[in-house]
Order: sequence, then C-alpha cells, then structure tokens
Amino acid sequence: MYPRFEPLTPTSIIARSAVVFADRIAVVDGARRFTYAEFGDRVGRLAGALCEIGVNPGDRVAVLTPNTHIALEATLGVPQSGAVLVMLNTRLSAQEIAGILAHAEPAVLIVQTELVDLAGRACALLADPPRVITAKEYESLLAVASPYAHEVRDEGSPIALNYTSGTTGNPKGAIYHHRGAFLQALSMAYHAGLGPNSVYLWTLPMFHCNGWCFPWAVTAAGATHVCLPKVDAAEIWSLVHSEGVTHCCAAPTVLNSITGHPTATPAQGGLRIATGGAPPSPALIERATALNIDILHLYGLTETFGPSLICQPQPLWEGLPAAQTARHKARQGVPTLVSGRVRVIDANGMDVPPDGQAIGEIAIRGNTVMSGYYRDATQTSQAIPEGWLVTGDLAVQHPDRYVEIRDRSKDVIISGGENIASVEVEQALAAHPAVSEAAVVACPHPRWGEVPVAYVHLREDTSVSEKDLIEHVRGLLAHFKAPKKIIFGELPHTATGKVQKFKLRAGTSSTLFESEDGS
Amino acid sequence: MYPRFEPLTPTSIIARSAVVFADRIAVVDGARRFTYAEFGDRVGRLAGALCEIGVNPGDRVAVLTPNTHIALEATLGVPQSGAVLVMLNTRLSAQEIAGILAHAEPAVLIVQTELVDLAGRACALLADPPRVITAKEYESLLAVASPYAHEVRDEGSPIALNYTSGTTGNPKGAIYHHRGAFLQALSMAYHAGLGPNSVYLWTLPMFHCNGWCFPWAVTAAGATHVCLPKVDAAEIWSLVHSEGVTHCCAAPTVLNSITGHPTATPAQGGLRIATGGAPPSPALIERATALNIDILHLYGLTETFGPSLICQPQPLWEGLPAAQTARHKARQGVPTLVSGRVRVIDANGMDVPPDGQAIGEIAIRGNTVMSGYYRDATQTSQAIPEGWLVTGDLAVQHPDRYVEIRDRSKDVIISGGENIASVEVEQALAAHPAVSEAAVVACPHPRWGEVPVAYVHLREDTSVSEKDLIEHVRGLLAHFKAPKKIIFGELPHTATGKVQKFKLRAGTSSTLFESEDGS
Repeated sequence: MYPRFEPLTPTSIIARSAVVFADRIAVVDGARRFTYAEFGDRVGRLAGALCEIGVNPGDRVAVLTPNTHIALEATLGVPQSGAVLVMLNTRLSAQEIAGILAHAEPAVLIVQTELVDLAGRACALLADPPRVITAKEYESLLAVASPYAHEVRDEGSPIALNYTSGTTGNPKGAIYHHRGAFLQALSMAYHAGLGPNSVYLWTLPMFHCNGWCFPWAVTAAGATHVCLPKVDAAEIWSLVHSEGVTHCCAAPTVLNSITGHPTATPAQGGLRIATGGAPPSPALIERATALNIDILHLYGLTETFGPSLICQPQPLWEGLPAAQTARHKARQGVPTLVSGRVRVIDANGMDVPPDGQAIGEIAIRGNTVMSGYYRDATQTSQAIPEGWLVTGDLAVQHPDRYVEIRDRSKDVIISGGENIASVEVEQALAAHPAVSEAAVVACPHPRWGEVPVAYVHLREDTSVSEKDLIEHVRGLLAHFKAPKKIIFGELPHTATGKVQKFKLRAGTSSTLFESEDGS
Repeated sequence: MYPRFEPLTPTSIIARSAVVFADRIAVVDGARRFTYAEFGDRVGRLAGALCEIGVNPGDRVAVLTPNTHIALEATLGVPQSGAVLVMLNTRLSAQEIAGILAHAEPAVLIVQTELVDLAGRACALLADPPRVITAKEYESLLAVASPYAHEVRDEGSPIALNYTSGTTGNPKGAIYHHRGAFLQALSMAYHAGLGPNSVYLWTLPMFHCNGWCFPWAVTAAGATHVCLPKVDAAEIWSLVHSEGVTHCCAAPTVLNSITGHPTATPAQGGLRIATGGAPPSPALIERATALNIDILHLYGLTETFGPSLICQPQPLWEGLPAAQTARHKARQGVPTLVSGRVRVIDANGMDVPPDGQAIGEIAIRGNTVMSGYYRDATQTSQAIPEGWLVTGDLAVQHPDRYVEIRDRSKDVIISGGENIASVEVEQALAAHPAVSEAAVVACPHPRWGEVPVAYVHLREDTSVSEKDLIEHVRGLLAHFKAPKKIIFGELPHTATGKVQKFKLRAGTSSTLFESEDGS
C-alpha cells in the first residue's frame, strides 16, 4: 500500500461518529440509551479492557449474545482492540458452540446473562476453554478500563470470523478483512439510504455475517440503533411507532410475521426493510405497501460479508401493479456499488447468455469476498478455486442483467432466516446406530419458509421411531436444524452411488405442512 | 495489495451503471440525450479511439471544453483508456494553457469547437504540441472506434492531474489516484444523497478538481447529468424546472446569482446545492429556503479531490431560525466518511484546543489526498511535509469539533469560484518594466466574493497608468486574474524585508467596490 494511504477500516467509523454525532442517540436497548459520545466511550473502554486482561492483536474474542448493546459494542470494540471478532449463533447447541470455540480458540468469550448456562455447557466440552466474561463482569471491566484504540496498519488483516457450520468435524470460519467491512458498511449505508435521521431496528441477528455489516453502516450514518433481543412482531410494531423506526433487515419469515401481525398499522414516516434468502411474494409486497413499508431485496452469503447483489429498484418500476413489481423484485439483482464482479457461469467457466433461460452458477470476485476459511486451506481453495468465489447457487441472467436464482445451493436449507447445511443434519442422523443412510432436503413450509425433511434407510434388523430419531438429532444440533419429518425407506441412487436428491425433492410435497397454522 | 482484492477505481462505476441503469437517461446536453447504455458505449469508444491513435497507458490526455457531454465522456473515458486525464480551465490565457501543456506533455488535446482558437494559440507557443482533436474529429473517431477498457491493476496509479496554477514558471499538477477518486465518488454520492431518481445540473466546472468527483458520483448513482456549458441564472432556472433538477454544486457567487434571479421560483421537488469556498450567509440561506433549496456547505482543495470537510447537518438544527442555521452552516465542518483525519495544528504541530478561539492550520491525511505534484518533488514535500497535507488555511475548532476557517490561505483570492494565487499576479505585475515591487491581496466584492487588488511601487523615473498596467496583466494571465484596482505607493515591510500583507489587507476596504451593481 502507498505510504500515505490510510487503511480502510470500520474502526475509523466509530471514531468519526463519536465526535460528529456526539449528542445523537446511538443505541436504544430497553430502558438504556447511549449517545454517540457515550457509545464511542464504551467501545473504547471495551477495547481497553480487553487489552488490560491480556488480549493481544490478532487474538480471537468470541461473543454469545442476542441483539443487545453488548453485541453492538463488541462488534465495534473487539476490532478496536486489535482482536478478531467471533459472533456466535445463539441458536446453536452446546456441542456446536464447543466445536467453533475449539476451532477459533478465542482468548475470551463474552456472554449475555441468559446464555451463561449454554456457554458453560459448551466450555465444559473443551480442554482449554476461553475466559468467560458475563454481562455483569463486562460492566465492571468497562467501568474501570481506559479507552483504547489499536491502530490498524493492514486493511487486509482479519476483523472477524463468521462460522457457517458448527459441527466439530466441519467448522468453516469465513475470515472478514477490514477493507471489505469498511466498503460494505459504506455500501449498505448508501443503498439502504441511512442518514442521521434514520432509526434502525435490530431484527437481523448480529451473529449473521456481522449483521450484514449494518453495525458499522448505521454507525457511519449517525443513525440510531434500536436493539431487539428477541424477534416478536408485537414488540417490533410497538418499537416502530414509539422509536420512529425507519429501517431494518429481516429474513422473509420475519417479514411475513411483521406484515401479517394483527397490531400492524402503517409506519408513519415510512419503513424500509432489506430482506434476503427468498424473494418477496406479490402478496407480501402488497401487504407491505399498504403498511408504508418499502422492501429492498438483497442477496449474499456469509462468504461475501452479507449482501453482494441488490435488486436495484428502477424509477421505471414505480407505480406498477403489485404482481409486476413482485416479478421484478423477486430477482436477486445486480452487484452493489462495492461488491465487484458477479458472473453466472456454466460448467466450463463461461458466462451463460443473459436470456433468462440458461442456468449457471453464481460466482463473485471482489473486495467483499472473504480472505478464506480460517485455518482451512483445502476448503478455501474449494470455495475460491481461481480467485472467484463459487456460490453453489444456480441462476439465470435476464436480458437486463439482473440475476435470478433458479435452484439454491443444493445442500442448504433456509429455515426462519437460518442456513442449515443438509450434510450436517445427515451426519447427525447417521450417528444413530440404527441409521444406514440418510438424506435431508428442504421442504416448503408456510411459517419457516423451508424446513429440513429427512429420508432415512435403517440398518437391517433395527428400528427407531420418527420421534426418537428427531430427539437424537436435537441432542446433537441446534433444535431448528432437526428434521420436521422423517420418511423411512430405501434411497434412490445414481450409477456411481450418489443419492439422487432431486428425486427426493420432487417427492417432498409442501402439502406435508400445509395444515400447520404458522403460529 | 492482497491478490484477490479488486483495485478501487472509478472505471468500475461506469461499467456497472451502463448495465444496471441501461435505459435511464445518463446525459442531457442541449438537444442530445444519451441513456446509460449509450453513455457507456461512447465512453468505451473514446477509450478505444485513444488507444487506436497511439495513446498508451500512463500517457496524459488534456481536455479543453466547458461542461459538455465531451467533458463527461472524457472524465470517464480517458481513465478507461489507461491514460491520465488533464482537464484544462477554459478561463485561462493561451500562455497559461501552454505552460500546463509544456509541463504535462499530453499526447492528445481534445478541444470543444469554440475553444479551438485558444488551443491553437497555446499550441503555437510549444515546441512539441500535442495532437489536437476537435469536437468534430472526436465524433468521427468515436463512430469507428471499438469499445475498450484498460484493466487498472494498481489503485494507487494516477487517474488525473489537476493544475492549480498555470504560469510557465510554477505549474502545480495535483496527481489524483484511482483509489481516492473511487472513494470520493462514493462519499459524494452518499453525502449529497444522489440516487437513480436524481438529476444533477453541471453548474460546477468539471475542470475544478474533476468536478469534485461528481462525474463519477452521479454516474455511480445512476442519476442524470444535465450539461451546462455556460453558467447563466435564467438558463439554470429553466433547466431546474424543465429537467426536474434535484442537485448541483456551485460557488457562492453562482449561488447568489441563482437565488437572486428574477425568474427564480421554488424548485418543485426540492433542490440540494453543495457549495464551498465561502460560507453561505444568513440572507442567502433564507432566500434559498424560500425557493425550496437546501444548502450543503463543503470545504476542500484541489489537493484533496475537492471536498474533504462537510458541514454535516444535524437533526437538532432543523427548524432553527435562519440566523442560527447560518451560524452553524457557516462552518467548514467535519471530515467526510472517507476523507480520513483532519486536524487544526499550531506552529509546533500540536492540535489546538477545540474552544472556538485558538487558531491553527488545517492539516489533512487520508485516501483523498493527492499523491503529490506531478514532476515536482520539492513542492510535494512542502505541501505534505510529514504525511499530512498542510492547507495554509487558518481555522478554529469549535467545542463540537466543527472546524471553521478564520483566515484563508494568505496567498489565495477566491473570485467567482476561481482560485487566484496572488504570487502569480504579482509576478505578472513585476514583469512590467516600470514596476519595482508589487503585492496583491483580496478585496471583498459584492458580485465576485473577492477580487484581486494590487499595491504597486514603481521604479524611480518611470510611470504607468492603472489602466495600462491592468492591460499588461491581462496580456499574460486569464482576465479574471487581473487586479480590479491598483494602488500606487511604497509597500510596508517587515524587518527581514517581507511585505506586510496584513497591513495592506487591513487597508483594502470593501467600499472600493460597494457602488458596483454586481451586474
């Protein structure tokens, strides 16, 4: 890097906003409110406290908390200490968390009060567990610490690890770098239209791709963060009206529950919701419009710092009927201003024609692609074989160059906004002594979008009930990952012995769950 | 740079917008209109044409045109060819232009029809003039060229030279790099609030700091560029209403003439005008508000890619009386999201206290500081002695950390939005055989903001009239640089023999020009 270039890093963002927006409310968390001056001070003290207890630059600091002020402070303060942030999915099982901790080897684990028990069970599985800091100890440490800011010298250095899979055998921690996080923050602030008058509600978990980099984006804008530890539609509507919420990000399942809630009344000043993971349906768009909600459709992966494509709204779309708007907005779209190059490529690595018909795989190259998987050169070179991240998502490119996914990465099930790797559930099923072979596929579900359904072939002369086998999985994995149905029988195979999942998918009817009321 | 990082460069911006906003109107220039697809095609053809006639990566390409579609195409197309853009100030004299051309040694000079004569006179002064391409030849070249895009590999490589002074003895060409131009484009798009529904009017010359990087910012947003070859308030109001202009940048003198024009009627959809060079007065803000115009106050230098500070509007300021708003908005403000670190330092290089009283010099360090002056290591190290650009502007820092200039760089006069280096005018005066010593200072002027006034001491037994001496200067420099008044007599000196300009300034009353009607 040229000697006078300043490294691109989100640590510059809080430094600026603590001064420029000093008196603005930065964080609302229940009854607690911090101005940007206070927020910046707390972030600085957290960085100082971490250094004082012996955390060194490059050390990992894990965090297990829902969307509280601690999650926000950690997202800004851990990088400011020079350490690498590891936000843990609070929905994981103790085993899964232990698997991530064993892999990331954090020096410290910061834990919200209600998750101390889960953290304890995870740490009990480790030979060399991290130092646990509870919410209470966290406050005591901050109270006496001196503010500190580590100077980032290399914008390519890691700022965070984001784990996509938690089983002990297969932990994949996507390494985010400072440069990408800064650019993504700017991009999200720009594309979402965040400004100092914005109020951002934390419906998206901050442990998902560092909240799509919105902790930094919202801070850059001088907007107000409204914490939401638990997603609850009534609470969301209450905050929308009482705090004047203008923006949030939400998985389609959350979006459905918000717009369909009986207490829903139009958002006074307008509400923009960024969504991803599934296209917004015409009915949803119609309901949202009536509630003064504008939906922005984004697409990305853990490996791309969250959103990499944006379904860029066009002035020409304004005023179209809902069905037509929905057709436009269903598409994953075009690269954001910072995400670099996105291609849809065939098996030979050539671009498919932009005819809306030819299917290829989405491949992405740019400054918001991870550096790689932590401590895993093999999986890194599989994910990024030739400088391009191959997503596994199959898509077409329309004549206007908007990308639309036709078949999602075959082994991922998106349930309630959470990604489930089917291979992980299959391994958990196979761990049962009665199971000979298992295959897990996505099944449409009225409430969760998709749920995992398992096809299981038992060993000869054994038996296990559906209920017991599901319980077995719940003992190993986060509960949301357990199959909602198990279908017993022989599995279809290809000539080379691979399970023909497309046949299973074709036979997995959405009618399985149609009767569920979605409550 | 890490192998998988993509270089930050504005060339990625037009590549994206030509696809994403293909059918949107990109450029309006009189009766001509180009969509983004057409604009991208023309930019690509320009890049191709330049290569075809032998321009190599790193070669300079100079451009002499007012704000036409050619200026826009060149600002995007020259970098896309791999060459370095040199936009020439159309208000300079033939000698000044020749001085810049002799220093920059461009391979090609693109000239708008009405400036062919000026270009010819400049080239006649050169031993090895560049190949001149007239507007007509430009169209013929584009018609047959194949679109081309050079791959930028080093984001620190030069994208443009911006000359701050044109005399043959002292040409200073600030080198802009791709990284800074990209970041500044994003920053301007964000801070100005540009989107695909925006319509940007080109009141600011594109030869000033590459139009503050707005050619790239407006293109990134997918907004419409409306060209304006000549600043004329009636024409501006006509375009505001007919094209639905939402944004422009303008020097205070232009802003005054826009808001004070008899045809001014409120801008239907609201108009945001970014200004710089002098604080907007309370009266101006009041007039602007009545016309539905929102004024954004920015501060920067040629050496900082244009705006580096923004008077960030605060929600708390909303609804304040005009006088109070004006006091807030008169300040140059705080760093933008990308401009890095800005300090106000005393003679020992220490930060002055933020008390609104202590005066220091503004110093800037970051990604939107130039690489240096082209082919001038001495002036570069004077401007950036220790990694910090020293601006020469004296300022205070208020308790809220907003910076406010108290005394502008001693040797710069800002007249009608143009910077005039007093030393340059002094040298022109001293070139007259009758002049023994000359000092030039700024004098407030009702129309131009400031104008140069000269204090001249003649040699013994010589004489020259005020009128003849002004004519002499106009023969050497751009007409706007000539002193508006000359006061003859001995000059006050310090003990070491320096002219005491502060005494001259104190004696230079604004009443000199009060009677001028500003027409």
